[in-house]
Amino acid sequence: MLVRFSKMHGLGNDFMVIDAVAQRVRLNTDTVKRLADRHTGVGFDQLLLVEPPTRPDMDFRYRIYNADGSEVEHCGNGARCFARFVRERRLSVKNEIRVETAKGSALLTLLPDRQVEVNMGEPVLQPVEIPFAAEQEAAIYRLEIEGQCYEVSAVSMGNPHCVLLVNDVAQAPVKQLGRLIERHARFPQRVNVGFMQVMSRSQIQLRVFERGAGETQACGTGACAAVVAGRLRGLLDEQVDVHLTGGKLQISWEGKGSPVLMTGPATTVYEGQVYL
Amino acid sequence: MLVRFSKMHGLGNDFMVIDAVAQRVRLNTDTVKRLADRHTGVGFDQLLLVEPPTRPDMDFRYRIYNADGSEVEHCGNGARCFARFVRERRLSVKNEIRVETAKGSALLTLLPDRQVEVNMGEPVLQPVEIPFAAEQEAAIYRLEIEGQCYEVSAVSMGNPHCVLLVNDVAQAPVKQLGRLIERHARFPQRVNVGFMQVMSRSQIQLRVFERGAGETQACGTGACAAVVAGRLRGLLDEQVDVHLTGGKLQISWEGKGSPVLMTGPATTVYEGQVYL
Repeated sequence: MLVRFSKMHGLGNDFMVIDAVAQRVRLNTDTVKRLADRHTGVGFDQLLLVEPPTRPDMDFRYRIYNADGSEVEHCGNGARCFARFVRERRLSVKNEIRVETAKGSALLTLLPDRQVEVNMGEPVLQPVEIPFAAEQEAAIYRLEIEGQCYEVSAVSMGNPHCVLLVNDVAQAPVKQLGRLIERHARFPQRVNVGFMQVMSRSQIQLRVFERGAGETQACGTGACAAVVAGRLRGLLDEQVDVHLTGGKLQISWEGKGSPVLMTGPATTVYEGQVYL
Repeated sequence: MLVRFSKMHGLGNDFMVIDAVAQRVRLNTDTVKRLADRHTGVGFDQLLLVEPPTRPDMDFRYRIYNADGSEVEHCGNGARCFARFVRERRLSVKNEIRVETAKGSALLTLLPDRQVEVNMGEPVLQPVEIPFAAEQEAAIYRLEIEGQCYEVSAVSMGNPHCVLLVNDVAQAPVKQLGRLIERHARFPQRVNVGFMQVMSRSQIQLRVFERGAGETQACGTGACAAVVAGRLRGLLDEQVDVHLTGGKLQISWEGKGSPVLMTGPATTVYEGQVYL
């Protein structure tokens, strides 16, 4: 079966995107793994599948597979690529696209200059839902690691995040401390760890140690979690430029009860055809 | 400029292959580097360019670029992919294809089952031409490394190779010893280092530490050099199966004055279109 696809990236986080609306596509774990190999396959961080929706109020169903074939709930960089893809392939002419995800839905908005805004939903701050072991919700928690005490914030953006403030992000012990916090007993489902340096009320620098992956170039949910944490601590305004290793995202959050909006680029690298 | 390409691999050594006969293609160092990026580009070990020949006795000119944009003389895995590519794209209907390379020429023969035979030319054994510092040509040289003496062979297949015999290739100190030999003072242009375990007179296992790259999955010239070394030592027959980490190559060498023939697979993964 010959399948058309696009190769895309959002700040270096790269995706193979397949239209399963106009094409019949069958994927199993082995096929995804084979395609993910960067030498003998197409190579990608995640594979995005565009399917018809199962609900009448949605435009598409959005499925995401990791390179190991497992299905993921949500990916901010992938969502931006998804929106550009359905426009470029003329699967939709709308500027606002509603997609059905494994956990619910997401609203994607096409903006000028290849930018896409993704409604990332409301942050989850209740410790039990993050999940994080704490007696009650707080902007700052004290976390003990190897006898030392760190002030951290805990936020879920669909996936759990722990955010630390640092004075110099370039010097932050992302790998060493990231590893220890990722598997800290108080985060029973493990956690992504963000190291944030506040430059001003509207500019932060951020490095993220991703759960199961190590440090990455541009974690979209990590950028959201950092801005939520910074705003809860009273350090940031409503609109913040987040400078990640791979590039810049704009994050906007009014406050509790509001969704987090993420704006960033989505780039098509090439189009291809592969036999599955 | 929209350019069609194929993504191919030979035993996991992967290539972006571009037809510059039917298409006008201009490449500079920056373009090659950008395309080589596995996240924001196409991603490859080498880029192969199929050009019209400059000599009347040749079918094509074969150019090879590393991911850093530098031009390489020869690559056995690439040559097999080159031959399959010109056939699949119907640039030639011949089974024997003569290609002009940076250093001379090569004869490629299409065989059944996606196998391709590459005439790799005669091995160079004269120390000064390898280059290797030694008083005279020998099958075995004694090489001193950090006070210890190793028996090695030295062969050039267009690029210099040092070959060591080991009892158990799985346990061989490829990285540590490879690094030391690669930059040994007696190899003034540095050297690729092969660790060969002889299973029988027609079967060897081989791991190769490539100059400037570290251990690789399947070094074509390394397989040739190992068989030449083994035959010069009287250990191997004329036809040998070389089991590399990435798969199997068949190497055949009659002896001094004859070319080395390498047979192995070439696989097309997908076809694509990219704006340059």
